[in-house]
Amino acid sequence: MLNPSADGERFELHSAVAMPRAAGFLWNRRMMMQMNCRGYAVAQFMQPEPAKYAHAPNLEAKTFMQPEQPYYAHHPGRFFYIKDEDSGEVFSAPYEPVRATPESFTFSAGKGDIAWRVVCAGIEVGMTVSLPVNDVVELWTLTVRNVSGRARKLSIYPYFPIGYMSWMNQSAEYRADLGGVVASSVAPYQKVADYFKQKDFKDKTFFLHERAPDAWEAKQETFEGEGGLHHPSGVQQETLDGGDARYETPAAVLQYRHGFAPDESQQYRFIFGPAFDDAEIRALREKYLSEAGFADAQREYADYVSQARGCIQIDTPDAALDNFVNHWLPRQMFYHADVNRLSTDPQTRNYLQDNMGMSYIRPAVTRGAFLHALSQQEESGAMPDGILLIEGAELKYINQIPHTDHCVWLPVCLQAYLDETGDYALLDEPVTGVDGRTLSVFERISAAMRWLLDVRDERGLSLIAQGDWCDPMNMVGYKGKGVSGWLSVATSYALKLWAAVCDMRQQPELAQSFREGAQQLNDAVNGQLWDGEWFARGITDDGVIFGTAKDAEGRIFLNPQSWAILAGTADEAQRGKMLHAIEQQLETPYGVMMFAPAYTAMRDDVGRVTQKYPGSAENGAVYNHAAIFYIYSLYDITESERAYRLLRQMIPGPDGDDYLRRGQLPVFIPNYYRGAYYQFPRTAGRSSQLFNTGTVSWVYRCLVEGLFGLQGQADGLRIAPQLPADWPSAQVVRTFRGAEFVIGMAREAGRKETSIVVDGKPLDGAVIRAIEAGRRYQVSVLLPA
Amino acid sequence: MLNPSADGERFELHSAVAMPRAAGFLWNRRMMMQMNCRGYAVAQFMQPEPAKYAHAPNLEAKTFMQPEQPYYAHHPGRFFYIKDEDSGEVFSAPYEPVRATPESFTFSAGKGDIAWRVVCAGIEVGMTVSLPVNDVVELWTLTVRNVSGRARKLSIYPYFPIGYMSWMNQSAEYRADLGGVVASSVAPYQKVADYFKQKDFKDKTFFLHERAPDAWEAKQETFEGEGGLHHPSGVQQETLDGGDARYETPAAVLQYRHGFAPDESQQYRFIFGPAFDDAEIRALREKYLSEAGFADAQREYADYVSQARGCIQIDTPDAALDNFVNHWLPRQMFYHADVNRLSTDPQTRNYLQDNMGMSYIRPAVTRGAFLHALSQQEESGAMPDGILLIEGAELKYINQIPHTDHCVWLPVCLQAYLDETGDYALLDEPVTGVDGRTLSVFERISAAMRWLLDVRDERGLSLIAQGDWCDPMNMVGYKGKGVSGWLSVATSYALKLWAAVCDMRQQPELAQSFREGAQQLNDAVNGQLWDGEWFARGITDDGVIFGTAKDAEGRIFLNPQSWAILAGTADEAQRGKMLHAIEQQLETPYGVMMFAPAYTAMRDDVGRVTQKYPGSAENGAVYNHAAIFYIYSLYDITESERAYRLLRQMIPGPDGDDYLRRGQLPVFIPNYYRGAYYQFPRTAGRSSQLFNTGTVSWVYRCLVEGLFGLQGQADGLRIAPQLPADWPSAQVVRTFRGAEFVIGMAREAGRKETSIVVDGKPLDGAVIRAIEAGRRYQVSVLLPA
Repeated sequence: MLNPSADGERFELHSAVAMPRAAGFLWNRRMMMQMNCRGYAVAQFMQPEPAKYAHAPNLEAKTFMQPEQPYYAHHPGRFFYIKDEDSGEVFSAPYEPVRATPESFTFSAGKGDIAWRVVCAGIEVGMTVSLPVNDVVELWTLTVRNVSGRARKLSIYPYFPIGYMSWMNQSAEYRADLGGVVASSVAPYQKVADYFKQKDFKDKTFFLHERAPDAWEAKQETFEGEGGLHHPSGVQQETLDGGDARYETPAAVLQYRHGFAPDESQQYRFIFGPAFDDAEIRALREKYLSEAGFADAQREYADYVSQARGCIQIDTPDAALDNFVNHWLPRQMFYHADVNRLSTDPQTRNYLQDNMGMSYIRPAVTRGAFLHALSQQEESGAMPDGILLIEGAELKYINQIPHTDHCVWLPVCLQAYLDETGDYALLDEPVTGVDGRTLSVFERISAAMRWLLDVRDERGLSLIAQGDWCDPMNMVGYKGKGVSGWLSVATSYALKLWAAVCDMRQQPELAQSFREGAQQLNDAVNGQLWDGEWFARGITDDGVIFGTAKDAEGRIFLNPQSWAILAGTADEAQRGKMLHAIEQQLETPYGVMMFAPAYTAMRDDVGRVTQKYPGSAENGAVYNHAAIFYIYSLYDITESERAYRLLRQMIPGPDGDDYLRRGQLPVFIPNYYRGAYYQFPRTAGRSSQLFNTGTVSWVYRCLVEGLFGLQGQADGLRIAPQLPADWPSAQVVRTFRGAEFVIGMAREAGRKETSIVVDGKPLDGAVIRAIEAGRRYQVSVLLPA
Repeated sequence: MLNPSADGERFELHSAVAMPRAAGFLWNRRMMMQMNCRGYAVAQFMQPEPAKYAHAPNLEAKTFMQPEQPYYAHHPGRFFYIKDEDSGEVFSAPYEPVRATPESFTFSAGKGDIAWRVVCAGIEVGMTVSLPVNDVVELWTLTVRNVSGRARKLSIYPYFPIGYMSWMNQSAEYRADLGGVVASSVAPYQKVADYFKQKDFKDKTFFLHERAPDAWEAKQETFEGEGGLHHPSGVQQETLDGGDARYETPAAVLQYRHGFAPDESQQYRFIFGPAFDDAEIRALREKYLSEAGFADAQREYADYVSQARGCIQIDTPDAALDNFVNHWLPRQMFYHADVNRLSTDPQTRNYLQDNMGMSYIRPAVTRGAFLHALSQQEESGAMPDGILLIEGAELKYINQIPHTDHCVWLPVCLQAYLDETGDYALLDEPVTGVDGRTLSVFERISAAMRWLLDVRDERGLSLIAQGDWCDPMNMVGYKGKGVSGWLSVATSYALKLWAAVCDMRQQPELAQSFREGAQQLNDAVNGQLWDGEWFARGITDDGVIFGTAKDAEGRIFLNPQSWAILAGTADEAQRGKMLHAIEQQLETPYGVMMFAPAYTAMRDDVGRVTQKYPGSAENGAVYNHAAIFYIYSLYDITESERAYRLLRQMIPGPDGDDYLRRGQLPVFIPNYYRGAYYQFPRTAGRSSQLFNTGTVSWVYRCLVEGLFGLQGQADGLRIAPQLPADWPSAQVVRTFRGAEFVIGMAREAGRKETSIVVDGKPLDGAVIRAIEAGRRYQVSVLLPA
């Protein structure tokens, strides 16, 4: 059973059997952790690149965050064994590693903490973890209560595996002076230069207790013994051995022995994290490891996360939507933009979209991000593949592969900021670039638009080179000839948006030239890529058109259709055909697949996407970031019912079948749900569990501009809701440019036209103008039934 | 209990409790596998770089072979579960993952196979694995016998975990057409160029059966279920689910159900390995998966490994030495040089030493290796850090860090080849190098000697730059000023050896100039680095002398002493002091530590070695490769008793305490035993379990030249044994330049001088000259008692 708490601030999973995959996530300014309900954990901190303080049991590859994280017995986690000293019976909380069937099990993801309440063998165990705002440390509270109605003698063992820290140096020992187990390691280096980069790394991992334990163990192998993790020899013994780890795998294990009267409860606090040296460990202990320290940190964190408040608060017939939109979606958006997914080189398109989302929360951040991104524009007008956030950062992983679409996102994302703030003054801000020139924001984006127009082939279509957004089609155009259908219509859309900005700045000739470019693109796409029922995805270096009816796999792609709608490439008749084809071939109960059928074998004129597993990541998954653009385009053409239906599929609902299939709590939108729905139905719909996704800013934009129709424009707030037909009413509190709009929307039988009344006066048209900051507006919107 | 088999071809470990660490290793021309007695495995094959076909459960880092490999529940392994269908009782062979206590347990490492015999719950399980010579495939035989004396109904489950193959693509399914489970994956690439490098990779893993099973499972998670690996849900069920893995972790599991009459036994054969496609899997099945296929492969492999026969067969009072020297040491040497440790870019010093060992087995290989190595000499005379063995190979890992000692190994290693073969014609071979010039071997090595003389400082000491052999002291001289005491004496030794070759080639001036260089070096070392009781290790960029009595850590290093003895740097008085200091500070029951005390904290004027864990790898370990040079130098000065004592410590003996402490079977010499003996006694002596080591060629050279004193020279075979005083006699069969010498050595009471009788005639002097190939010589050596 899955429930939001009454105040919406938590999500609770009640189960007699722990779920395999459900997870919550926490982050602060320097770290993030994802806690699986079974007790497994993935945690990283920045020094300055992502690093770990609890490791796998082997030498793990450094990589980007992986979807569908596999767990296994020795995966890093946070566990508490409980042993009845009389019977010898053992279980572990929350569930792993012993996997005893609990009498009751609650996993609860809050905004600022993750908690469990597990009852097993007459003992209730409460576990809570939270993070402070600025330090890299986990704050754990363990509460053990005897609910068996009889006196019990228990041993309680926190077991925090530390794993394989380093092949160069690792050890661990109990440090009475610091009050806990401290593991040490040295990050391996081979080149002299790397030593200087790494010498200040936090190579120690500490696990400190508030209350002194009766025994401890610091060596993984000794603790497990021949019993194994499900029944460790250390736990079978009367007391732990008190051993150390010397170039052996470290673990932090404590033992508390206590006689519990009926209903007696005991509380324990622990902190866990990385540190540079003993002094830092001591300082963290001082600061946090007490009731007051925990409380202060939780208060401070609550303040921090309370910033994650969007510009709409909703009350609709869809309670699950209300909960998600009022509580969880702004939190996920805030995470993305406040810490930039805890990376030092976010992909340019992600950086712009993540910060676009901040327009609805803290627009000053968005403004700064645009200025920062544009300062890294190349002299050609092109944008780099990633935006470097700190001195010494480097483009890593996929950011080393050139992609051609980054410029598209400048006007597309900026529009949301301008609509929300009316801050057109941003366009005049001078930006000194790595190219050495100082140009205004307006000039830089215009240069980016010209660059997009330049990198086209003789047919007028956009070259794809080694790839564009979302589909890693890195072999379509690597010889310099292949083109992208999506990028062509996306460029057209970007030009169309930017032409409107040029108009507002009284630059009609520039506007005209961009509009002509957009028209050329639309014409070229219609001429070359219209396949009869939908647009093709592109043309390879060798002239093969793909994403067409003749393809057995990769027959229809979503992105070219969505963006052709936005760009005005498609006329109404074409749109009708496209929507039908998408419904037939791409829609699933879990959302719209990015393309279908998924590739099951390599097509080496297409590339990497065809090597991904069918239905995973970009190979025919319900890739939410692509799906949301289709939804956005549907709102653009007021296909409201279809748009809402698809939007709701994206939010993991609280209903049983849905979350069991997806394996995810409705506290975030993942980057994808497994697709290949018709090919591999068993796995379709499963969540990637990855909360890093450009999707969320656009979900919010769909809500603001589409569903609730409360979009800003230069001179005011336009009101044009697109509520589902079966909603009789909805209430929205919209904050906008310092004012608050309390808006009641209701359908009225027999009504033909929408009527808007503001503070008792009928509004002329749909735009509220001359908005006064600090004022509260009462708005009543009556809609046709 | 640990025993060699009667024929010496196997080593057997009998135990009621499986040992934690003991392992055997097998290799062929394209792969190697290390099997831990508990069932865990590390296996790699070349495509062309080392790759895996059974993976960890997470995304593992690609790395060089690690010492002291950590194991954990989900580590790759090869397991067989056995379930009694009546009682439900389950155990697994050989031991993991269930860890049931066996009634008897035998782990047996042969030259061409690894085998177990385990009795548990009245069932005897025999497991054997072998490899063919040229294909990458494991050949497994499972024999199950009912020794309970009553009828039994059993389910037998081979469980071969395949692990996390790729984040891009992984799956597995049962393939009735191929007869087994086939897992597929795609090696991830991001750069277009990498696709072309990887597209022919063997990305499939197959596990095929000879006899059709009753059920199967291909998804790891389903097999384990909530039972966990120690009691899998799949095994608890009546039959396996027959599931597949779709972007889920693959495993290969089969189930055989069979009623066993008392004493009935059944045999099963399986093959496991990587493949490119179905056709290759089918071909491997055809070739191997039958009784005849296995037998052919085993015969072929026996022929292959029988080449690993050294030039001495010994029969001494030390049976363990006999077994190791006659059987295992040549096998380990042969492995090193025949497949070059299965790398594509061996370190130059390793390549030369490994091939030096082949002088005693197949000297033509040694000859070819010298020519190949010299073809990669730089124009300056310097040798590169690694020798590239195949087109497209690249210097990796530590080979990207410049080291200054590679030239030293040319004359040092060539000497053994020349002594063994008398093939001085090699010196005239022309070698066309990457430098574009064609020079003879003699000219090239002379150039290397000049280069060594050039890279010295104004004091005449050898610059260390970013490091020299054995000690990763990469910060002593990275600014260009620091010098190495070891490299200075090693250069002196190399020059001395090469001067003798120059003499033989009637080049007295060249000989003279190299001898002068050696003398200068010896003088400089004596002047700058003699610390009163031993030689210092070096001088840092900032002028700090280290490896001296004033250092609390890193006080005395072994290498500068050993090589100062070989180079004649030390006079007799100095040698006496050095030997005493080494005995006091470096000797341990497990051998001689490389230096002491081990560093426990970073010394950033020394570098990486100080960051390694104390007692591990090069930080104060009993680093056998360093220890063997000390032993070699002791034989050089006829310190025979001491030399033998230390030599015997290096070979893991069959006595209980010793192998339990070391955790290793005496089938190979590991690269190190843990040191830091006085600092961390708990772990001292433990084997690294790493069988890649330059040590073995030198052990053999110590036996040939030192202990048995049967060294070749240009014109014959010198006989000068240095047997331990308590050996009354020893017999050696020595093959040398095509002849066979059957040599009896015996002490005679009252004898003052050694007497040598060859085929009944007293030998004048110690050298047998005019040796006739094909002839068998009977030699009797009488030694003083």
